Amino acid sequence: MDSSTVCRLMEEGVRPSYPHALIDSIPVADGGEGSVDAFLTALGGEKICLKVKGPLFEEVQAFYGLIESGRTAVIEMAAAAGLPLVGDRKDPLVTTTFGVGQLIMDAAGRGVKKIILGLGGSATNDGGCGAAAAVGIRFLDDQGQTFIPVGGSLSKIQQIDMKGKSPALDGIELVAMCDIDNPMHGPQGAAWIFAPQKGADPEGVEHLDAGLLDLDRRIQADLGLQVASIPGAGAAGAMGAGAYAFFSASLEAGIEVVLDAVGFEDRARDADLILTGEGRIDSQSLGGKVVVGVARRAKPLGVPVLALVGDIGDQVEALYDQGLAGIFSINRLAIDFSKARERSQSDLVLTVDNLMRFIRRMEEGPDQVL
Amino acid sequence: MDSSTVCRLMEEGVRPSYPHALIDSIPVADGGEGSVDAFLTALGGEKICLKVKGPLFEEVQAFYGLIESGRTAVIEMAAAAGLPLVGDRKDPLVTTTFGVGQLIMDAAGRGVKKIILGLGGSATNDGGCGAAAAVGIRFLDDQGQTFIPVGGSLSKIQQIDMKGKSPALDGIELVAMCDIDNPMHGPQGAAWIFAPQKGADPEGVEHLDAGLLDLDRRIQADLGLQVASIPGAGAAGAMGAGAYAFFSASLEAGIEVVLDAVGFEDRARDADLILTGEGRIDSQSLGGKVVVGVARRAKPLGVPVLALVGDIGDQVEALYDQGLAGIFSINRLAIDFSKARERSQSDLVLTVDNLMRFIRRMEEGPDQVL
Repeated sequence: MDSSTVCRLMEEGVRPSYPHALIDSIPVADGGEGSVDAFLTALGGEKICLKVKGPLFEEVQAFYGLIESGRTAVIEMAAAAGLPLVGDRKDPLVTTTFGVGQLIMDAAGRGVKKIILGLGGSATNDGGCGAAAAVGIRFLDDQGQTFIPVGGSLSKIQQIDMKGKSPALDGIELVAMCDIDNPMHGPQGAAWIFAPQKGADPEGVEHLDAGLLDLDRRIQADLGLQVASIPGAGAAGAMGAGAYAFFSASLEAGIEVVLDAVGFEDRARDADLILTGEGRIDSQSLGGKVVVGVARRAKPLGVPVLALVGDIGDQVEALYDQGLAGIFSINRLAIDFSKARERSQSDLVLTVDNLMRFIRRMEEGPDQVL
Repeated sequence: MDSSTVCRLMEEGVRPSYPHALIDSIPVADGGEGSVDAFLTALGGEKICLKVKGPLFEEVQAFYGLIESGRTAVIEMAAAAGLPLVGDRKDPLVTTTFGVGQLIMDAAGRGVKKIILGLGGSATNDGGCGAAAAVGIRFLDDQGQTFIPVGGSLSKIQQIDMKGKSPALDGIELVAMCDIDNPMHGPQGAAWIFAPQKGADPEGVEHLDAGLLDLDRRIQADLGLQVASIPGAGAAGAMGAGAYAFFSASLEAGIEVVLDAVGFEDRARDADLILTGEGRIDSQSLGGKVVVGVARRAKPLGVPVLALVGDIGDQVEALYDQGLAGIFSINRLAIDFSKARERSQSDLVLTVDNLMRFIRRMEEGPDQVL
């Protein structure tokens, strides 16, 4: 379920018990596909559609969002470099983020002051070099010729020349939404961990990883930056590293970027209750980042947060201390996920409905019942 | 999980949030195996052990409970006529409830004023004739000879003679706990629905059903009673019918008998919350009888009732009107019951713990959190 659907279903579960409740729905983007729509739903704004180069340098119809009266652009890199765009031609050795740079340039041309860049769902492993090339940064080979590096040709870069970078980007803050901590290269890096699912075979992975190592050294030498170990440098085919090195982006947890952008504190301060959720909540993995992010920021406001989740992992008790008032699974039957998923929408509505009935009943107290 | 275990686990889930809560645990019997122990745990009392005839007329060690200072006996018929007692010699054509009558006689001899008889888990299909024979009721064949009818020989009864019924039973109220509505015979009757699981083949089932029909006619003729269509007449191999016809028993829902016996209203009146549960709750089948029974009687007291269940069936919304404040599944993962059952005990504790944390948090309100 995407976050807009979850918001709608939660509202459906609240209404029978609290028909006059003020419900402020904030679909939460995760940086991947659907992030722009989530921001636009949460904040209103304009969707800009334009043609850019796709991951295989072909022309594709892409888009980004303008929010806050055009002061901020929201770009999901998947719109120009996403895995669905390559179909069965997955090959991170040849794909590019060039179109992502074109989206950035278009937004800059419209006078935005800030760009939120969602890292996620990419078909690329080019370290953001394609996007950098699209904004005028030059990559030179051993012949002194400018070229657009792709995953397979990163080691050919002999020089990075930032002088050509478009001045239209000056003064624009770039924030990259990034929920993984992987470094740029090495055993936990972009190539080894993520390139296989983008179509790379073991030999290709080695080649990609070596290319990222060379790019790292090139960035150190020419730009004087240490990017490889920044948490999230390996995100989206090392677009995290490129966003930092070429665009001076900050890499931030997706949920924090979203909550900042939507003005969470102002919208949540007077709430009686906050409902949030995720597919799975646990103490270790990615699961629960959204829930914990919401709970942490609701805690100082004194607003209770309930998490509605698919699966509740083990040792989640520590999460109560983060501000969670309760964690409820939407599973109503002991059945496998393959079956449970088919009824997850109605299960979510019924679980929220049950909670609201319960809360209303507890509010009413004994006397109202007699 | 038996009901005593559930009570213990629920308490374990409540304690961390409410260490000083007064917890009154009432294990709920269902009439089958474990019912006597549940009553003794809930009310205190004495367990009487004695030897009686088992379902195959062999000698077995059985028991019953004395509660309310010996004024009431609790008998689970499974203790003298239960399926586990026959092992792999299951055959409802030859098994008897004679031992159940012996237990009743023993209790009567101790001066009880009331007997609660749990119908459930029987290996028999004798319409309670064995139990009746044990208290002196005579069944005569076409030679005028007294015999003890079993499932396969019910049609041989030519006369029922109540005159020999022990006067020790006079004035003793007998209440049968019965949670099924099946009639004595016919397509929904004791033989067709339950005899196969007691070891009867199709031919045997037909024979048993014909026997129950003849017994019904005999009871009409000799005792002037219409028993066949009483809801629950078909319970426990038509022991329901026999209890009514031979012992003037009332057939009552198990949960009502338990709640009466434990003095539910007095114990629940001052409670802040009641937790109950079942393996499954739904709108149609047996599932939810305990939960609904508890909720209905808590409603006029104004005490909210939460149901903790394994599975939540469809269309359970009507149950909220019966007094349920909330229905929570203990399933925390979307996994099949074969796996879920292994973690059901800890899932129950964690689900109660989560609810208690939530309730405590809601009680504290925003100000306590800041």
